[in-house]
Amino acid sequence: MLVDTVIYARWIAPVSPHGTLLHNHAVVLNAGAIVAICSRQNAASSYSAQNEVHLDTHLLIPGLINLHTHAAMALMRGLADDKPLMPWLQQHVWPAEQALISPDFVRDSSLLACAEMLKGGITTFNDMYFYPQATADACLQAGMRANLGLVILEFPTRYASHAAEYLEKGLDAYDSWREQALISSSFAPHAPYTVSDATFEQVVTYSAQLNIGIHTHLHETHAEITESEQKYHLRPLARLANLRLLGPQVSFAHAVHLQQQEMDMLAENGCHIAHCPSSNLKLASGVAPVSECLKHRINIGLGTDGAASNNRLDMFTEMRIAALLAKGMSGDAEVLSAHQTLEMATINGARALGLDDRIGSIEVGKRADLTAIRMDALESTPVFDPVSHLVYVSGREHVSHVWVDGALQYQSGVFSGIEPQELQAIITKWQPQVARYTSGNYKG
Amino acid sequence: MLVDTVIYARWIAPVSPHGTLLHNHAVVLNAGAIVAICSRQNAASSYSAQNEVHLDTHLLIPGLINLHTHAAMALMRGLADDKPLMPWLQQHVWPAEQALISPDFVRDSSLLACAEMLKGGITTFNDMYFYPQATADACLQAGMRANLGLVILEFPTRYASHAAEYLEKGLDAYDSWREQALISSSFAPHAPYTVSDATFEQVVTYSAQLNIGIHTHLHETHAEITESEQKYHLRPLARLANLRLLGPQVSFAHAVHLQQQEMDMLAENGCHIAHCPSSNLKLASGVAPVSECLKHRINIGLGTDGAASNNRLDMFTEMRIAALLAKGMSGDAEVLSAHQTLEMATINGARALGLDDRIGSIEVGKRADLTAIRMDALESTPVFDPVSHLVYVSGREHVSHVWVDGALQYQSGVFSGIEPQELQAIITKWQPQVARYTSGNYKG
Repeated sequence: MLVDTVIYARWIAPVSPHGTLLHNHAVVLNAGAIVAICSRQNAASSYSAQNEVHLDTHLLIPGLINLHTHAAMALMRGLADDKPLMPWLQQHVWPAEQALISPDFVRDSSLLACAEMLKGGITTFNDMYFYPQATADACLQAGMRANLGLVILEFPTRYASHAAEYLEKGLDAYDSWREQALISSSFAPHAPYTVSDATFEQVVTYSAQLNIGIHTHLHETHAEITESEQKYHLRPLARLANLRLLGPQVSFAHAVHLQQQEMDMLAENGCHIAHCPSSNLKLASGVAPVSECLKHRINIGLGTDGAASNNRLDMFTEMRIAALLAKGMSGDAEVLSAHQTLEMATINGARALGLDDRIGSIEVGKRADLTAIRMDALESTPVFDPVSHLVYVSGREHVSHVWVDGALQYQSGVFSGIEPQELQAIITKWQPQVARYTSGNYKG
Repeated sequence: MLVDTVIYARWIAPVSPHGTLLHNHAVVLNAGAIVAICSRQNAASSYSAQNEVHLDTHLLIPGLINLHTHAAMALMRGLADDKPLMPWLQQHVWPAEQALISPDFVRDSSLLACAEMLKGGITTFNDMYFYPQATADACLQAGMRANLGLVILEFPTRYASHAAEYLEKGLDAYDSWREQALISSSFAPHAPYTVSDATFEQVVTYSAQLNIGIHTHLHETHAEITESEQKYHLRPLARLANLRLLGPQVSFAHAVHLQQQEMDMLAENGCHIAHCPSSNLKLASGVAPVSECLKHRINIGLGTDGAASNNRLDMFTEMRIAALLAKGMSGDAEVLSAHQTLEMATINGARALGLDDRIGSIEVGKRADLTAIRMDALESTPVFDPVSHLVYVSGREHVSHVWVDGALQYQSGVFSGIEPQELQAIITKWQPQVARYTSGNYKG
């Protein structure tokens, strides 16, 4: 049979079935889909491919899914570090955003983020930012998959002036990319502390009518919870429950501070968590109770958050920190094994986005979103368990090939859709403008 | 003036004075030492160099100092992961060691570790393992600096059968490398739970007589403390204090579990801590109280621990995790700034080793141990504060040049003293032998 691509790999971790590792197998791609997974010999005898790729020292995994980010903040990477949350926001991030954001800024910054993510083996990201159509443009240029948030706030920004206008612009954006197979959408009411009851109710109604999921921040800091208790006499999650927002269509970013009954509530309602360990540590928000949430069987994916608070859009770092933190905080070295961590970074993210019928694992019939990681660098040797190495040893610099929807979008430093000069021009254009808002030691 | 090398760098973080960042300066090296730090213009007009190095998009820092490792465990990288400490030791690490360790194994494994560390910008490591002369051989081949532990245990291994023999072999090793400028020594009684009072007393005596420091594990796990309370009716640190071991010549690895009065004791005695955040999390030992220790003004360096429990000998990862954890655990985003973290990874380590008159900062008169990091990779742009980027953004893959004692030992993938074929031969030779003890999915 004639097919587009056959990838021969030393190791394949298909993620489903759980814990599987295939040795010397092949994945066969045609028309963007995975059409077969078989032994090297069977592939060679059954398929004739336009492209044959030989990954003799590599692990092939499903493309990584970044379940919470703000791609367009890439140009604010390291804008101000080692600052408490409020001065960081009030003196640096918000003034920069108020001065700079525009479709141009968002497109350029998102393209830089897409390049970073793709180079690091991420094939899908779940985004929340202003001017999402500009992020969609960047994403399509890069050839990535994204679930873009239709962001909603009560207060005015350069993007929109009040909740109704945010919603309207969001729905326009949604209409603009409905024909794009790689783009899907969530409503993205920013957070309980920035969105009113009335707006959340409207989001719940539209979400049900249009069958669009919801992506919001939740319980990121103690301050947010205290403020809600004062204003609403309820913790944010209880307030959202009263507003009938909870359900399997909802992904909560952060969820650092959760009581037992709140974990029960998330589990019963099938809500998803986007765990962002680096960002939560860096902003001193705390450590999410991952091992407890796992006991409650809550679906947890992994997110980088934006480059202003991480400052890497790097799922390898998040996998490693997530696994290590879960062990260190629980006192149990068996919590969050390497295989489970890989699931968080792939199929769990797909489930949260309602895309698990299409992506998140290497299975026949799914779209071909795939990432290959070299295991032969001296710092990766010897190899006894490649999945353990993926989480504890490998870095994003070991990513060699990335396919999205069957197309090879990145290989060894080269992108199919992005030229290095374009990224250089973006930095040259924007760095001096963003620098006005930095606390860093920037000099022209 | 004719000199060996002038390095022109876009940015230099000399570490001393605290918090300094130099723009477009040069570091002048001659006969292994730093002889001048001056503006680019002054360097060009005052010095004629055999080697001129232009680092136009780089940050130059003092070589990183890994304050706690077991280099010769590199061949056990990922031997068994996601295991509780005792099964990990009893079923995997100890049987592998009992079967495999020899001068050959230790030399080969240490060479792999040296290559990994050098490539990652580490110029000095503080080691503790059997057959330290074999590690010295590897270290000298690689051209690195090391402080090698003269390991002492009560129980027999292939290396020695009882404390007196360990001590004797250690002193022989010490004599063997006394003429080597790059090698220094510590006594390394393994830990309070593996070394008797009598042996510790002997170590204290020899340490004073020979002016050699002491390197030991301390309060890594709760179990170790409970066991000591049962056996000695004392916590390990109190026991060591009674044995008059405390002082500025002592570095304690881990120190995860410390009471307030124990921090007072460490501070008053000028003891040093080798903080190993990745290893402590991975083995579920816990999180060391770094922000509290900093308040006590205890000198804290950073260590990777061995590759069996980390599994990266990567100080970039340790810097980032240390800074993030200190913020997340203390709830204060200002704790452990990027500059402070860089100090931990350089001058603090030098101080712990008693080598701060020679290394740990870029100052005139010090030995030229230097590491250059590229800041122009797309994932590192834009740059507002290169020291913040060093800690929160850069990875070891961005290290471009490493000098030890004035000699360029690593540049862009190439070592001066190590050939890739030699490392490949080491993996080919040992991987199948180590694999017998793995829990991983290894197949020939």
